[in-house]
Amino acid sequence: MPSDESARYFEDVQIGDTMEHGEYRVTKAEIVEFAQQYDPQPFHVDEELATESMFGELIASGWHTAAICMRLLVDGRDDDTASAGARGVDDLRWHKPVRPGDVLSVRAETVEKRPSRSLPGIGHVNHEITGLDDTGDHVITWTALALVERRNSD
Amino acid sequence: MPSDESARYFEDVQIGDTMEHGEYRVTKAEIVEFAQQYDPQPFHVDEELATESMFGELIASGWHTAAICMRLLVDGRDDDTASAGARGVDDLRWHKPVRPGDVLSVRAETVEKRPSRSLPGIGHVNHEITGLDDTGDHVITWTALALVERRNSD
Repeated sequence: MPSDESARYFEDVQIGDTMEHGEYRVTKAEIVEFAQQYDPQPFHVDEELATESMFGELIASGWHTAAICMRLLVDGRDDDTASAGARGVDDLRWHKPVRPGDVLSVRAETVEKRPSRSLPGIGHVNHEITGLDDTGDHVITWTALALVERRNSD
Repeated sequence: MPSDESARYFEDVQIGDTMEHGEYRVTKAEIVEFAQQYDPQPFHVDEELATESMFGELIASGWHTAAICMRLLVDGRDDDTASAGARGVDDLRWHKPVRPGDVLSVRAETVEKRPSRSLPGIGHVNHEITGLDDTGDHVITWTALALVERRNSD
């Protein structure tokens, strides 16, 4: 939580603010390692079984794709933002499977802001998140429901 | 993709079907390991910095909480379901932080089904997913948008 004048509060956030971050190269080893721990379906953990699946090849868990985008967002964002966490996610969609060798990037656009009615000193800020592969195709999209401190809340 | 008579197709899915699965003990080491890779915010990766954060202690990344619930769902579900993947997730909410030592379980209730208008031989099946800690509190909820094969689609 920043305490200096330069911090980016709710009042400083503008609808339409857009940031792009990347790149994250997805390896076969990482796809398998994540899925063995969190999503051990055959088409995520076994290259041979994956060829017989509806996808025809090994693909990343959708939760892995989301986690990779989160990493890109955390690495890329402005640390001075007066973040107060996140409530959740709306409208998460997997548009295209992520495959070994894909290089992902992420775009975040601020689409909505409003003061919280129930949380004093807090504002809601929604961001449209888009994960893209290196052909420019969308692989995942979601709306992030972030909370940001208001500047003059006391 | 099952091919035998015993497979559970779209027609076999009933609104109100409910399954519960667990348990998954969340360790401090796993919280830090996941977050170092995918969500390296101070309150997820550093026990000391976490005490100064808005959470006051080390907590799991929300994406980690979702991934753990996914693991419980994959381990617990009926392998004979004629799954055709998933489109995404609606209304994901983090209700309570997950802490080292928490033991998570998950509940999945079928809340909606309808034939797909655009995908031949496929039906939409929505499940309400609830992740719970060992005090019975909800830690995460979401609606899973699954796709299931129809029995008589050819």
